[in-house]
Amino acid sequence: MTKVINSYDFEKYLKQTKKVIEEALDFSLGPENPEILRESMRYSLLAGGKRIRPILCLASCSLAGGEPSLAVPTAVAIEMIHTMSLIHDDLPAMDNDDLRRGRPTNHKVYGDAVAILAGDALLTRAFEMVSLRSPGVDPNRLLNVIGELSLVAGAPGLVGGQVVDLECEGKEVDLDTLEYIHLHKTGALLKACVRTGAMIAGANEKLLQALTTYAEGIGLAFQIIDDILDLTSSSEKLGKTAGKDLLADKTTYPKLLGMEESKKRAFDLVEKAKKAIEPWGADANHLISLADFITNRDR
Amino acid sequence: MTKVINSYDFEKYLKQTKKVIEEALDFSLGPENPEILRESMRYSLLAGGKRIRPILCLASCSLAGGEPSLAVPTAVAIEMIHTMSLIHDDLPAMDNDDLRRGRPTNHKVYGDAVAILAGDALLTRAFEMVSLRSPGVDPNRLLNVIGELSLVAGAPGLVGGQVVDLECEGKEVDLDTLEYIHLHKTGALLKACVRTGAMIAGANEKLLQALTTYAEGIGLAFQIIDDILDLTSSSEKLGKTAGKDLLADKTTYPKLLGMEESKKRAFDLVEKAKKAIEPWGADANHLISLADFITNRDR
Repeated sequence: MTKVINSYDFEKYLKQTKKVIEEALDFSLGPENPEILRESMRYSLLAGGKRIRPILCLASCSLAGGEPSLAVPTAVAIEMIHTMSLIHDDLPAMDNDDLRRGRPTNHKVYGDAVAILAGDALLTRAFEMVSLRSPGVDPNRLLNVIGELSLVAGAPGLVGGQVVDLECEGKEVDLDTLEYIHLHKTGALLKACVRTGAMIAGANEKLLQALTTYAEGIGLAFQIIDDILDLTSSSEKLGKTAGKDLLADKTTYPKLLGMEESKKRAFDLVEKAKKAIEPWGADANHLISLADFITNRDR
Repeated sequence: MTKVINSYDFEKYLKQTKKVIEEALDFSLGPENPEILRESMRYSLLAGGKRIRPILCLASCSLAGGEPSLAVPTAVAIEMIHTMSLIHDDLPAMDNDDLRRGRPTNHKVYGDAVAILAGDALLTRAFEMVSLRSPGVDPNRLLNVIGELSLVAGAPGLVGGQVVDLECEGKEVDLDTLEYIHLHKTGALLKACVRTGAMIAGANEKLLQALTTYAEGIGLAFQIIDDILDLTSSSEKLGKTAGKDLLADKTTYPKLLGMEESKKRAFDLVEKAKKAIEPWGADANHLISLADFITNRDR
């Protein structure tokens, strides 16, 4: 599939927005005490990456007619939640991963105890960002954002998905279970990105529903592509251990559906996602380009 | 020191309030998925205990002239934060404790992975309780409560205290460091109990300040007594492994100050705590009795 270039400069938007996010992430962590906690939190939060989630959040705020700078603390909160889930999932007690974004995982550098606690600290800081560090936003909107984040980060979202995932390791898993895991481990947070961004702008239920459909589509597509890349990319390119799903005998889309069908499904999902927000015309440009960007990523 | 019996029926208040809390805790957890996550969350959250923290929260709401039922979701959130910190602290990667409240620790029953995730789920549920499940409270007050909880649960509170504690294990620690650890690991959350309860009721700064002084006093006293009990109680009575501090060569108050001086200090701290809220007269009855209750506990 070819990359869609919109008439507006998406690359520029991406670059500028990423810069805003990186600065806000850097600023979100203070001196912290003790020093090793500070280092561990910074190590993972400022480890680079595409920052797709916070960008989705700001782009949705724009689409909903809001001033995106008002959504920056929420975007940072989302990246903190994402980061803490990676730190905890990588632990020896869970996925036991040594590499993440091309570098040793947090517990490999700081030990399991500090890694667990740095994750806890990032999770709580996320709620601090929205409750105390989001000036200029209506308190009811902020409460809704906090509610949304508490649901997707917890048992009904990331945590529940991860427990089901752990339970399924080494077992035969059907497509329904696989999608359950992905909808909770990946989809829930992506949905929260677009919904919270729009909530900050006071979006109505119709738009929130369209954004939910959009996020479910790209969320699942994102995961299918992750499965594909685990098979086709090198560890170096991937920035994490490649072929790990195969080694762990994990059920993946390519394994269940075959490579071609998996690719087709990812493509269809992205098309469906884009269609959901088409009614918003040019205002949806960022999100439409982001959907393509996510599906065309080569790592 | 003798138990102070106020003219009103403290035992009755304690019993009734604990019942309210237990019911709210039970109700705060839903079906959850998968089943093992639900069991693990319930195992630790509904493990009994004195429920001192949520009771402090409701008592402070009353003192501040609020309807205590409005503070119940916040009280539940605090117990969830407390419980998650116990689950994570007990992990083999941290304090490696096998017993808690007379039963095997969470990870001993459900494994490290589920224990970590159950803790994460309780932490996020805490923020859900305040943001989405606290009807009838002014949104600005709820945001302040969420802010307070995010600070005490994270790097500036529980997490920071635990990291410093881990760093100090097996080392000679001076009184300043010991108090730093206790103020963060125990004091911060106790302070949040009384402050958030009062915030729900819209307390002014003067009362919040008095409650802060109160909580700092009983927080430190609580910890000194914990150190004393670790030396003098049996594991059975304590409900956790006794003599562990000594075995781990941890610095404790009795070790630094001697047993008698430690007891005297705890007593003085409680007196100071009670003095801070005396100006509120009979309205402070619950909290004054609670201060005594905490210092007279024999397990």
